[in-house]
Amino acid sequence: MRIGVDAMGGDYAPLHVVLGAIQVVDQLSPGSEITLFGNERKIKEICRSQQFNPDRFGIVSTSQVIEMGEHPVKAFQQKQDSSIVVGFHALQKGKIDSFASAGSTGAMLMGAQSILKTIKGVSRPCISTEFPVQTGGSALLLDVGLNADSRPDNLLEFGILGSTYAQNIMGISQPRVALLNMGEEPEKGSLFSREAFKLMEGNPYFHFVGNIEATHLFTGTIADVIVTDGFSGNIVIKQAEAMFQLFKDFGFCNPFFDRFDYEVYGGAPVLGIAAPVVIGHGASSPRAIAHMILKSEATYKAGLVQKIQEAISNE
Amino acid sequence: MRIGVDAMGGDYAPLHVVLGAIQVVDQLSPGSEITLFGNERKIKEICRSQQFNPDRFGIVSTSQVIEMGEHPVKAFQQKQDSSIVVGFHALQKGKIDSFASAGSTGAMLMGAQSILKTIKGVSRPCISTEFPVQTGGSALLLDVGLNADSRPDNLLEFGILGSTYAQNIMGISQPRVALLNMGEEPEKGSLFSREAFKLMEGNPYFHFVGNIEATHLFTGTIADVIVTDGFSGNIVIKQAEAMFQLFKDFGFCNPFFDRFDYEVYGGAPVLGIAAPVVIGHGASSPRAIAHMILKSEATYKAGLVQKIQEAISNE
Repeated sequence: MRIGVDAMGGDYAPLHVVLGAIQVVDQLSPGSEITLFGNERKIKEICRSQQFNPDRFGIVSTSQVIEMGEHPVKAFQQKQDSSIVVGFHALQKGKIDSFASAGSTGAMLMGAQSILKTIKGVSRPCISTEFPVQTGGSALLLDVGLNADSRPDNLLEFGILGSTYAQNIMGISQPRVALLNMGEEPEKGSLFSREAFKLMEGNPYFHFVGNIEATHLFTGTIADVIVTDGFSGNIVIKQAEAMFQLFKDFGFCNPFFDRFDYEVYGGAPVLGIAAPVVIGHGASSPRAIAHMILKSEATYKAGLVQKIQEAISNE
Repeated sequence: MRIGVDAMGGDYAPLHVVLGAIQVVDQLSPGSEITLFGNERKIKEICRSQQFNPDRFGIVSTSQVIEMGEHPVKAFQQKQDSSIVVGFHALQKGKIDSFASAGSTGAMLMGAQSILKTIKGVSRPCISTEFPVQTGGSALLLDVGLNADSRPDNLLEFGILGSTYAQNIMGISQPRVALLNMGEEPEKGSLFSREAFKLMEGNPYFHFVGNIEATHLFTGTIADVIVTDGFSGNIVIKQAEAMFQLFKDFGFCNPFFDRFDYEVYGGAPVLGIAAPVVIGHGASSPRAIAHMILKSEATYKAGLVQKIQEAISNE
C-alpha cells in the first residue's frame, strides 16, 4: 500500500514529519511505502542530514502550505498546490491508499468532505480517540471535536462508527457502547442527551449499555466505546491531556499513564469518509508522526472504510 | 449564626453526618451553632456512642427521609416532614441562617427554588466547584450540573455569580473569568458557545479573558473562574474525580493532588438563591461533612448572598 503523508503539516514540519517517516519506514509491512507531499528540496535535505536515501520515499512536490492560523475553508480553496489539497486529490484518484497530516484540522476536514465525500448513509463524519482503561486495553471516545454542533441522530451514527472501529481496529468482538451523560439513569441529562439515549436504546446496530458518567471513563468496567457530541468530547480529551501533563510535571511514572501520551496513539482516523484519513496532533514529535503513519497503515489494512460501509448499509 | 444540617442526607446518613458535626463543632467561630434536622433518637444515639453531649446541637425532629433514588420533585411535594423540606422552611423563616445537605441534589434544588426563591435578577441558580491550580490557590468552575440545559445568557449570569464568589469566598480581588470552549479563538466552538462568548465579551460586570481550553484547566495561567453549561461542567468535575481516583489507585502522593479530594472542599454552594445553601457529596465521609459545615459558615459570614444581590442589581 502507499501511505500518503503531508510533510508540511504540524508545528515542526517538515523536520519532524520527515524524521518520523525515516524512523518508521523499516517497521512497515512488506509492500507498504510512504509518499511524502511537500517541499521536495527540504525533504531531501532532511533525509541527507540523516544519511538516509530519499529515494526510499515517494515524493510529490508541492509549492504551498496551509498554515495552522489560516481560515481552513478559504486556504483550502485558494491554495490548490498545497500539500493537503494535492494529497487529497491523490487519495481520491487512487494514487495513494491513505492520507495523514498533523497540519490544519479544519483543512483536513475540508479535504475529507469536499474531495473524498462521506460514506453513503453517513450524515456527519467524526474523529475518535483511544485511551487506556484500568481493566486493560483501551476505550474509544467519539466525536472528539469534528462536530461542534451535533444532532441526537448523529450520535446514533457515531455509535455505529465507533462500534465498527472497535471491532476492526481494537479487536473487541462485541463492543459495549455507552452514551456520556450526567447520570446513569435513562431520564438523566439534557434534552439533547435524553433524545440521543432514546435513539440508541434498543437499536439493532450495536450493543448499547446505557449512560456512562465521566467518573467511569478510565475504569473500563462499563463501556468500550463512549459516544458524545464533538463539543463535550473535545473537552474530555483536552482535560485528559491536562491530566497527563500533571503526571509529567509531578514526575509520576507508570506504564498505564504513559499510554495517555498522544504520541503513542498516532492520531485520530476520520470515521465515515470514503478513504482512510488520519489527523495527527499539531505538536507532533517524530515519534508521534511514526505512530500516525502506523495508524494509517493499520486503518487501511483492517479495511475500516469497507467495514463501515457494510455496517451502515445494513441500517 | 445557626448552621442547619440535614442529618438524614447522604449515603451514610445519619451516622456520617452526626460524626462530622461532632468533629467540626469545636472548630466553628464563637457564636456559631449547629442545628441538625432528622431522626432525633438516632442522632442522640450516635452522639452518646461518641461520649458527646447531644445538647450541644440544636435538633429539629423530622419523621421522613427523601431517598437518593426517589423522584426529587414528587418526593419533595409528598414528604412534607422530611429533613430537607423542614430544613428549607426553617431557613426561609430565619430560624437557621444556612442549610446544608449531602442528600438528594434534586430535592435540594427543589427547596432552593420553590421555598427560598432566586435572587431578583437571577434567572437560573447554579452550583460551583473549586479545584486546585498549579500556580497556587484554586480556580472555580460553574455551573457543574444544576442546569442540564442552559441558554447563552445564563452563562453571562454564571460569570457574575462566579466572579462575586471568587472575590468574596476565595479572596481574589479581580477574578479572571473565562468561557470553557473547544479553542482559544473567539470564533471557535459551538453555536451556543460562540453566542455566550459574544454576550460575555466586553461585559461591564466582570473581567472576561476569553475562551479557555480544558488543557489549561489546572494550570491557573488563564482564568480564576471558568464558566460553562451544567452538562459540560458536570462531565468536567466527574472526570476530575476519575483522575483523583487514578492517583489513589496508583498510590501517587502529592499535596497538590490531595486538594482534588472533594472531602476538603466540603460541597458546592448554590449560587443565585436568597439564602446560603450548600450541597455536599452523596458519599460524604464525616470529614467531608465537617468541611461542608465549615463551607456553610464561611458562605454566610462572607455575606455572599448580599454581595450577589448587589452585583446583580448593578446589572
